[in-house]
Amino acid sequence: MDTDIGRRSLKLHEQVRGKIAVASRMELTSRADLSLAYTPGVAAVCEAIADEPDQAHTLTIKNNTVAVVTDGSAVLGLGNIGPLAALPVMEGKALLFKEFADIDAWPICLDTQDTGAIIDTVRRIAPVFGGVNLEDISAPRCFEVERALQDLGIPVFHDDQHGTAIVLLAGLINAARVTGRRMDEMRVVINGAGAAGVAIARLLRCIGQTPEVCTPVDDIILCDSKGIIHRGRDGLTPIKQELLEITNRANRVGTLQDALRDADVFIGVSKGNLLNGDDIRTMADAPIIFAMANPTPEIMPDDATAAGAAVVGTGRSDFPNQVNNVLVFPGIFRGALDAMAPQITDEMKIAAARALSEAVDRPIADCVLPDPLDKSVAAHVADAVRRASSA
Amino acid sequence: MDTDIGRRSLKLHEQVRGKIAVASRMELTSRADLSLAYTPGVAAVCEAIADEPDQAHTLTIKNNTVAVVTDGSAVLGLGNIGPLAALPVMEGKALLFKEFADIDAWPICLDTQDTGAIIDTVRRIAPVFGGVNLEDISAPRCFEVERALQDLGIPVFHDDQHGTAIVLLAGLINAARVTGRRMDEMRVVINGAGAAGVAIARLLRCIGQTPEVCTPVDDIILCDSKGIIHRGRDGLTPIKQELLEITNRANRVGTLQDALRDADVFIGVSKGNLLNGDDIRTMADAPIIFAMANPTPEIMPDDATAAGAAVVGTGRSDFPNQVNNVLVFPGIFRGALDAMAPQITDEMKIAAARALSEAVDRPIADCVLPDPLDKSVAAHVADAVRRASSA
Repeated sequence: MDTDIGRRSLKLHEQVRGKIAVASRMELTSRADLSLAYTPGVAAVCEAIADEPDQAHTLTIKNNTVAVVTDGSAVLGLGNIGPLAALPVMEGKALLFKEFADIDAWPICLDTQDTGAIIDTVRRIAPVFGGVNLEDISAPRCFEVERALQDLGIPVFHDDQHGTAIVLLAGLINAARVTGRRMDEMRVVINGAGAAGVAIARLLRCIGQTPEVCTPVDDIILCDSKGIIHRGRDGLTPIKQELLEITNRANRVGTLQDALRDADVFIGVSKGNLLNGDDIRTMADAPIIFAMANPTPEIMPDDATAAGAAVVGTGRSDFPNQVNNVLVFPGIFRGALDAMAPQITDEMKIAAARALSEAVDRPIADCVLPDPLDKSVAAHVADAVRRASSA
Repeated sequence: MDTDIGRRSLKLHEQVRGKIAVASRMELTSRADLSLAYTPGVAAVCEAIADEPDQAHTLTIKNNTVAVVTDGSAVLGLGNIGPLAALPVMEGKALLFKEFADIDAWPICLDTQDTGAIIDTVRRIAPVFGGVNLEDISAPRCFEVERALQDLGIPVFHDDQHGTAIVLLAGLINAARVTGRRMDEMRVVINGAGAAGVAIARLLRCIGQTPEVCTPVDDIILCDSKGIIHRGRDGLTPIKQELLEITNRANRVGTLQDALRDADVFIGVSKGNLLNGDDIRTMADAPIIFAMANPTPEIMPDDATAAGAAVVGTGRSDFPNQVNNVLVFPGIFRGALDAMAPQITDEMKIAAARALSEAVDRPIADCVLPDPLDKSVAAHVADAVRRASSA
C-alpha cells in the first residue's frame, strides 16, 4: 500500500473520530414529542408488536438495518488482527451501505473466534436487524457460520464470498460477450480455495438454474497452493472435497500452470505475482484474466495484455475493470430488505450479477463492469434482487 | 395510559418507520475519498489499533457509542414482552441519548433471557462500544448481569436501577432543603424492592462516602408486597437479605402502614393507589413523598398534599417534580465517555445527583428537580461525573 494514503487515512480518522453516527429521525422539543416518541405513548407500539411481531417491520428500524458482523479473523490483507482493530473497516462498510443504498448498518465486532459462539451471538442480537452482513471471517469458519444462520428469518450473507463472486460473474458475463464466448463452453481455472474462490466456483456452477441468464460453466478447475484440487489428493478439507463434486470432472492433476494450458479464463483470488506472460501464452487465444489478489494482482494488467489477454480485471481502482464488492452488497441488501426476504438465494445472487452486467451499456474490453462509484447501480441491482426474491 | 396518546404514537411510528438512523460523517464522492475512508487507506488505521488498542478511542466510533441492551423481560409497565416488542423503547432511548448528549447509542435487543447468555453476549459485542446501558431487564437477573460485567473495561450501567436512584437522590436533597431537614436525621421508607428500590436504598446509604454532599441516610425501611423486610422473615431472596445489612437497623416488623408511622420520607417504586390521606397523616409533619409508580402513583399528588405532604414528586410529566431518568443517563454517559472511565462508580453517581440538585436554582416545594426537557442539564451532570471519575 502507498504509505502516503495510509498516513492521510490515519489523519482523517483522527479528525472525524468515527465515520458514522446515530441520527435522530424525530423532533424532540416538547413534552408532547417526548410522550409520543417515548413514554407513555410508545407502550402502544410495543403492544402492537407483541401482538403481531411482523409489525416490527413497519414500526421500527428493523426494516432498514443491517448488522455488519466480524470476528476480526481475516481483515483485508492484514489477517487475524482481532475485533477492535477491525472496527475501522466495519465502520467503512456501514458508511458505504448508507451512501450507496441508504441502509442503516451498524458494526458488530465480536470478541470471540469460536464458530459456535459467533453463531449463538448473531442469533441473540438478530431482533434489531433486517439483515446480517458477515465480513472478514476466515475460512473455513465463515462457511459454517453462514450456513448455520440461514434459518434466522432474515438474510445472512457473507460478502467476502458472495459479493466477490457476484461481481466476478457480472464481469465474466460481459467478458464472454466481448470475446465472443459462451459461458458453457469456457474452461475456467480458479486459483485460491478460500472464501471467494469457493463462492465463485459454486456460483458459476449454479447459474444454469436461471436459464435466462446463461448456462452454467461446465469445466472448472480449482487450484490451491498445492496445485490442482483433484480426487485422491491427500489431506483435502471437507469443503475442497465437496467442491470436487462440481469441479475437475476429468480429474486432472498437476500445477496451476498445468491447469492453465488451453484455459479460457483465469480467476485469481490468491496471492500477488504468481503468473507471468509465458503462463498466459499457454492459455487459449485471447483469454480472460481476473487477477484479484490485493494489493498486488496475480499478474499485472500490462503484462497480461502484452501476453495476449483480451480482458483483464483486478481488485484495484487504478486499472480498468475493478472487481469491487461495493457494486453488489448495497443493492443486494436494499432489494432483500425491501422484499423482506428471509434469505438471499442463488436466484437473487444471479439476478444481481445479471443486473450488474447489464448496468454496463456497451461492454468493451476495458469496461466489463460499472464504475464502483456509480451510485445508480445499487438501485438496478436492488430492483432485480427484489423481483428474484418474490419469483 | 391515555389511549389517544397511544394511537397518535402508533401513527407517528408508522410514518417514520424507525426513530433513529445511521448517518455518514465522511464525504464519499471520489475514488480518493473511498481510498481514505475504506480500502486501501483504512488498513493503516487497523494496524495502528492492532499495535495500540487504546487508539480505538481516537480513531473509531468507540469514543462516543453506547449499547442500549435489553432482553425485553421488564419493559415499561408491560412486563415480559420480549426483545422485538421492546425495540421501540430502546430506539426511543437511543433518540434521547442523541438529543440530550450527542451520544451515538444503538439498540441491542437480545433473543435470550438466560443470565449467563446475556453476560456472554454483552462481553462479545463490547469492542464497538464505549459504554453499555442495561435497560428493562427484570430483577433479580439485572443485578447479576450488571455485577458480572463491571470488569469489562467500559461502563456498564443499569439505568432502571441507578438512573432512577440518582434522580430520586437529587430530588430528595432539594426536598430536604425545602423542608429544613438533614439527610442523616430523616426516617425513610422505600416501598418496592425491585431494581429501583434496591438501587435507591444502596445509594442513600453510600452518599456519606462523599462527605461534601451530605451524610448518609441512616434510617431506611424497605418494604415489599409482604410488608417490612426484616431479619428472620421467611423466604427472603439473597438481595433482600443483603439489603438488611444497610436497612431496618432496629429490625422493625409489620406492614407498610406500620413503617410509615412518623417517617419523614416515602419513596414508592411499586404499584399505584397503595396509600391514602390517612396513611400520610400518620407520618411526621410535612413529609416528603415520591410516589413513582407509573402510570398511577402510589398516591395522587393532590391527595398527598391535602393530607399535609410538603413536597410531592411522581414519575408523571403532568405533575410537578417529575422523576425522569432522562435527567441523568445522557449526562452520566457523556461524562463517563469523555473521561474514558472503566466503570460508573458510586462517587460518580453521587456527583451526578449533586449536580442535578444544583441545577435547580432555588428549590421550592413544586420544583425540587429540573425540567426533564431542559437540555442544558446533561452538560452539568457530565461535568460533575467527569471530575468525579478522575478524582
